[in-house]
Amino acid sequence: MSKQIRLNALDMNCMGACPGLWLHPKDETGGYTTLPYWMNVARILERGLFDSLFIADIFGVYDVYQGSADSAIRLAVEFPVCDPFLLVPALATVTENLCFGITGVLSYEPPFSFARRVSTLDHLTGGRFAWNIVTGYLNSAAKAFGKPTQMAHDDRYKMADEFMEVVYKLWEGSWEDDAVVRDKEKGIFAHPEKIHKIKHAGKHFEVEAYHLCEPSPQRTPVLFQAGASTAGRSFAARHAECVFITGLTTKMTAGIVSDIRAKASSHGRDPAGVIIYTAMTVIVAPTDEEAQAKLEEYKRYVSIEGTLTLYGGYSGIDFSGYDLDTQVDYVESDAIQTFVECFSILDPDRTWTLRQIAEFLGIGGFAPIIVGSPQTIATELERWMTETDIDGFNLVYAVSPADLKDFVDTVVPELQGRGVYRTTYPPGTFREKLYGEGKRHLPEDHPAARYRHRSQTLSRSQTNVNTHESTP
Amino acid sequence: MSKQIRLNALDMNCMGACPGLWLHPKDETGGYTTLPYWMNVARILERGLFDSLFIADIFGVYDVYQGSADSAIRLAVEFPVCDPFLLVPALATVTENLCFGITGVLSYEPPFSFARRVSTLDHLTGGRFAWNIVTGYLNSAAKAFGKPTQMAHDDRYKMADEFMEVVYKLWEGSWEDDAVVRDKEKGIFAHPEKIHKIKHAGKHFEVEAYHLCEPSPQRTPVLFQAGASTAGRSFAARHAECVFITGLTTKMTAGIVSDIRAKASSHGRDPAGVIIYTAMTVIVAPTDEEAQAKLEEYKRYVSIEGTLTLYGGYSGIDFSGYDLDTQVDYVESDAIQTFVECFSILDPDRTWTLRQIAEFLGIGGFAPIIVGSPQTIATELERWMTETDIDGFNLVYAVSPADLKDFVDTVVPELQGRGVYRTTYPPGTFREKLYGEGKRHLPEDHPAARYRHRSQTLSRSQTNVNTHESTP
Repeated sequence: MSKQIRLNALDMNCMGACPGLWLHPKDETGGYTTLPYWMNVARILERGLFDSLFIADIFGVYDVYQGSADSAIRLAVEFPVCDPFLLVPALATVTENLCFGITGVLSYEPPFSFARRVSTLDHLTGGRFAWNIVTGYLNSAAKAFGKPTQMAHDDRYKMADEFMEVVYKLWEGSWEDDAVVRDKEKGIFAHPEKIHKIKHAGKHFEVEAYHLCEPSPQRTPVLFQAGASTAGRSFAARHAECVFITGLTTKMTAGIVSDIRAKASSHGRDPAGVIIYTAMTVIVAPTDEEAQAKLEEYKRYVSIEGTLTLYGGYSGIDFSGYDLDTQVDYVESDAIQTFVECFSILDPDRTWTLRQIAEFLGIGGFAPIIVGSPQTIATELERWMTETDIDGFNLVYAVSPADLKDFVDTVVPELQGRGVYRTTYPPGTFREKLYGEGKRHLPEDHPAARYRHRSQTLSRSQTNVNTHESTP
Repeated sequence: MSKQIRLNALDMNCMGACPGLWLHPKDETGGYTTLPYWMNVARILERGLFDSLFIADIFGVYDVYQGSADSAIRLAVEFPVCDPFLLVPALATVTENLCFGITGVLSYEPPFSFARRVSTLDHLTGGRFAWNIVTGYLNSAAKAFGKPTQMAHDDRYKMADEFMEVVYKLWEGSWEDDAVVRDKEKGIFAHPEKIHKIKHAGKHFEVEAYHLCEPSPQRTPVLFQAGASTAGRSFAARHAECVFITGLTTKMTAGIVSDIRAKASSHGRDPAGVIIYTAMTVIVAPTDEEAQAKLEEYKRYVSIEGTLTLYGGYSGIDFSGYDLDTQVDYVESDAIQTFVECFSILDPDRTWTLRQIAEFLGIGGFAPIIVGSPQTIATELERWMTETDIDGFNLVYAVSPADLKDFVDTVVPELQGRGVYRTTYPPGTFREKLYGEGKRHLPEDHPAARYRHRSQTLSRSQTNVNTHESTP
């Protein structure tokens, strides 16, 4: 294994990541509305030298199961859910190197004020900010914003492309690198001729404005993307620096990874420059037996109804009409058949009941679960790295922060002892930590680069003039 | 004087509040993009037992002077300006009682996600959040959001009324008080029948959704408003709990105060319940002479061009075409004549040149300046309280944080010694600190109360049933 392992922690600004697990005695996610809970999580992750705390988000509620939101409300299935952006400034005060990858749904808010929020966070964190680009997938979210239904999947991605164009113009094109001088002698803050009003008139957005923030350490934040669909992967290949995927097996994961790298390459980007993390649930204890017992104990808290509520929301299938204990190959529905087909990947000869599927998804969702001693876990993580060409893992917890703490205290030292995990943080911004010192800004092969001013682009990279274009 | 003095500090997420003062050697506002600068300011204000750090905001740039934004850019006149909401979580980590009054422009962003941001902040601060409701006044902001021009002034306030209706429904009407039980025994987070989807279909907004946050300590945050126009005052009288005004003299201020209280009364609200702060610039030093010398020294840094840029933006008048040293009664323009008429309040027999006006506005803007020893300042603040019926002051600095620190270190003890300023913080949320223990939520005479559920309203105030209405 040549690459070092990279780690993120997946979280959400709500109670418990796995339906029902907030009932576990060790669960502390009930403190999600308070700063001390989050500050504790951030300190644990920084101690473990994680790349980032990655916070998912939704703007709606899961209301497919039984045709209502009742089960989501009763069982706290990703509901209520608070704004994730607002955690970052507080967590930046108690960390120095941990970065923050925050989900921002771009379907409902104007790009102009969104761009200011992101630049402000990049400033306040000293360049430790990443944006996880999401188009949203819930009809309930669309209705909250006065739209009868969400846009069709592929149209959402077209709109997302235009949204990206606007924010790239604001982040990369509005202020030249040497615009701000803060010259107290001459009384000059910035040179007006080096600050440009962006003028965008597209199908979805119209913006005529200067970006309100002076350039932040990274300008465009590190870009995350998690889409798994064809349109989503193609979008990720164009825009994302870090891609989150989920694969149940190493084979399935390797296929997704090679597809994403090939797509990035076809867009003129360095395929190795796309950093791919796969979701992974790790249940660790001093011995393999104790770890297995821990998993079994966790499973007792899984809410079957909560899990079907969650996956009903994801898939649009109301699972409440199906018998939990009927094998799914007897179920007369194309939709549900499609949903469960992915389980055949795990074991082609096995058929599943809905209850078994819910139990499986209850801990960690579609992320594989690896269970064992720190040594067993380390070996398994190394195997995944070797067999899939991923760059690292997006760690999914069952009980927070206990699982994160156990991982950091036992698996991280084991990985470090094997030489496959760093022992200190690299310096600089998030992008520098990912790509090396001096790489604070998006590279010239990224689509955002074309919105830079020619003078700026030239001074950055005199040797690479062929790729330059002036701002449209 | 029967009332105790209340204090807020006025600030903005940009360089220097007064044009040119960022050039002063003691100015530290150049650190506005960093957390340490703001954490220091917050600690100073909490030491001084201030009600809140109040942060103004704009979404545009001042581009009236010479018909361009060049002077605003060159001289850093409220530009660039970062998002103020994102300072709050960080400042909440280093304070326990200081509250945060943050300007949120409601003209361009959807109420649904805005309501979630505010609830999240009220949660994270433990109920120390206030929203300063602003409709915006810049055409440059409208263009940034794809609108050719801002809405007409009175239409903006009608839209604002509808925006308020939506957020009241979300904050007050979506979750009943006893909806959330977090019952780990029964595995119930909340009772679905006590959480309601709000359905709003109005002229400007359409929202069908549950509020995404469980009730925060204050539900609706403390509501600030700063409008001075007739429509603005009427809006404030209906909605605002705290009103910010600016009056150059005690007589002018007393008139505004009595008008606001009368308007609140005419809307069925307790006129004394509206807390009114007037803007005030305080230049303090150990002796009156030293304070006067300090002011003269500050004045040397005032940028005349920057001040005219700022007030050009406020008023829509391009002052660049006028001779700076011509007395304004010779100027042949209705617009500029109107602008300067307010100065005759200060001295009816005096005429002003534009340069004199800019010099006057340069420190503290339309806020009066009081200059002197801590004793002189305390006497003057007491006089303002007695002669105007205000509740306190919105402190404007010239040099930050030096002026705030001087005020807290010298004027606050003087006021405390006179028994006109508190010596400890009252307990509780911001609203409780303003209105007394137990008053966490808006009172029944506030328009937001009508969106509460009947069951909820009844249980809160059994004796006052006449004012109840069920959720529309």
